[in-house]
Amino acid sequence: MTAVRAPDRAADPDVHSRIVLSRLSEPGDEEMGGWVENLGAPEVLGRIRTGRLASNMQAHYRARLESADVEVDVDLAARAGARLVVPGDDEWPVQVDDLGAARPLLLWVSGLPGLDVLTRRAVALVGARACTPYGEHVAAEMAAGLGDRGWTVVSGGAYGIDAAAHRGVMAVGGSTVAVLACGIDVVYPAAHDSLFGAVRASGAVVSELPPGSRPMRTRFLHRNRVIAALARGTVVVEAAIRSGARNTAGHADALSRPVMAVPGPVTSVTSAGCHELVRVAGAALVTDASDVVDIVGDLGADGSLERRGERRPHDDLDPTTLRVLEALPLRRYAPPDSIARVAGLDASTVLRALAALSAARLATSREGAWRRAPAQH
Amino acid sequence: MTAVRAPDRAADPDVHSRIVLSRLSEPGDEEMGGWVENLGAPEVLGRIRTGRLASNMQAHYRARLESADVEVDVDLAARAGARLVVPGDDEWPVQVDDLGAARPLLLWVSGLPGLDVLTRRAVALVGARACTPYGEHVAAEMAAGLGDRGWTVVSGGAYGIDAAAHRGVMAVGGSTVAVLACGIDVVYPAAHDSLFGAVRASGAVVSELPPGSRPMRTRFLHRNRVIAALARGTVVVEAAIRSGARNTAGHADALSRPVMAVPGPVTSVTSAGCHELVRVAGAALVTDASDVVDIVGDLGADGSLERRGERRPHDDLDPTTLRVLEALPLRRYAPPDSIARVAGLDASTVLRALAALSAARLATSREGAWRRAPAQH
Repeated sequence: MTAVRAPDRAADPDVHSRIVLSRLSEPGDEEMGGWVENLGAPEVLGRIRTGRLASNMQAHYRARLESADVEVDVDLAARAGARLVVPGDDEWPVQVDDLGAARPLLLWVSGLPGLDVLTRRAVALVGARACTPYGEHVAAEMAAGLGDRGWTVVSGGAYGIDAAAHRGVMAVGGSTVAVLACGIDVVYPAAHDSLFGAVRASGAVVSELPPGSRPMRTRFLHRNRVIAALARGTVVVEAAIRSGARNTAGHADALSRPVMAVPGPVTSVTSAGCHELVRVAGAALVTDASDVVDIVGDLGADGSLERRGERRPHDDLDPTTLRVLEALPLRRYAPPDSIARVAGLDASTVLRALAALSAARLATSREGAWRRAPAQH
Repeated sequence: MTAVRAPDRAADPDVHSRIVLSRLSEPGDEEMGGWVENLGAPEVLGRIRTGRLASNMQAHYRARLESADVEVDVDLAARAGARLVVPGDDEWPVQVDDLGAARPLLLWVSGLPGLDVLTRRAVALVGARACTPYGEHVAAEMAAGLGDRGWTVVSGGAYGIDAAAHRGVMAVGGSTVAVLACGIDVVYPAAHDSLFGAVRASGAVVSELPPGSRPMRTRFLHRNRVIAALARGTVVVEAAIRSGARNTAGHADALSRPVMAVPGPVTSVTSAGCHELVRVAGAALVTDASDVVDIVGDLGADGSLERRGERRPHDDLDPTTLRVLEALPLRRYAPPDSIARVAGLDASTVLRALAALSAARLATSREGAWRRAPAQH
């Protein structure tokens, strides 16, 4: 149950091949995704190597082969504290499978263990880099409100609305995930070094790009599909008529996930994109976290993960995590080894479960000791 | 075709009875409306006088009989420069008939002739008295945009959004109608004396209440149904969660007329009612006059009056008014008697038609002479 570190994993042919293939194709390459889905990553890589992939991308992929070095990628990622998560892993966030052939080949993840649990109840909060103080205020308040209600906030780690969203949810001790448009080891924007450090401690930083990759315009656009896919719904806080945030909203819509927009003054160009989303694209108008939860809590596209009516957060937990939850004291803090004894599980399994329970806001810690979180409404 | 002055009209039994009945009942009294619809106003009045109205309101209506004095009402209205308009009159705005039994018994009107033409393409712009500078700005801009597009702005003559709407449309030479919750001869709020003077010169002030009536809370609420009924749709510019403007929106919705709301900062309590209208009541979000015209121009509930596609404003004109339009010079100003000769109509008919054409922004005048208005888009 513990997170396996990347160096051990690259020996697996599927993992190894995925790392190479992610060097040969750009994010969102549905042709590559389709091949991998149909043949499996090792077979696709083998065909590319031997010039047998029946695709007019064959030459393009093959030309990039020489730039692929799995050992270097694994080493760069490890130095950045990142682990590898691939489809089929326990912590693979299955909701991104809704992207179909555009599903990421892999995710480099740095931060708390349990990306699946961390993003089980997640909302994307996105918006303009060049936002107004109003937008920054609303993003932070909404993110805090989502955190208070046990929701994880997913965003892009950019200046403006993204940063306000990450900071807002962290300010109330909530969980957050930043999805990058560059390598997991690249700090972009550079000024967000400490922000990303905080995000790793309160959730995770995620990237599907090979380590060392630079951000590019197309990568931002494809990155947005991962933000939209990880979350139950996407809220655009401030956006001009043409903006990356509206691109994320478009991805959410294509995934049949709710698109929401925060209104603002009609005199503000940074609210014009939000108003157009409501007016023309049928986005729901939301004014606070409660409005958002009303929508994603009941109408999330990912029906199997929905929280309806009387369902409680731990209805979604796997048996092991539930066992750890039941072993947690209600009113005092207990050290992990004591919890492990009560639960009858090994310490590393308990630690992973505790992280998952913390992300789901079912457990809370103080000085390394744990108890159940107070009941929520 | 000319507006007949009130003193001449009160001799008509229907008109006389309606004036009396409007003293016996409050606006929006659907029981009274139903009786009048079924029996005619003279018969209803006769039955009340003789104690024969089979209604448990009989005693209530009869007790008020002694306060009714048609001569006094007609005199007060005449001194306020008002005329009487009743159902069946040429200038009766037939769209208010959609109110059914809640249709006003009569309307006292002061201002330009042709209330029917004046309100043929009308939008209600309403909102909070205690509005913000933002709301005032947006109301004025939206009203000006509607005026520029040949739409009449209907509102309630109150402080705040109402006043900004009236002023905004008048600032571009457009038409406006103020519907009062008091007698046509009562200036409320008193500080709006000069505003109402300007409204009369650019459109009309309208009231269904007997002259001398004081404004009361219930009268404001029933007045709102007339605002909603005169217009093709109602726009709420700024409103708190509980507000009179939302009451007007409710009336519009009950009439199956579009309800629109202007967004604002989610941090502003005076926008909260607008956001709730969009979120919960399904109001359309509108940011400017163009958004409004998109909705009322194509989706107005009053299908027979709709302007669709290539229809031009004068498609709605009656044959006499169209004849006057065709007699108007295109490039020079002509005096009314010259236009009357060309059209082959009497001078008073021509004057009424000119007022109607002016309200429809098809004719324009300078120093008492007239020409066609420049083409619009």
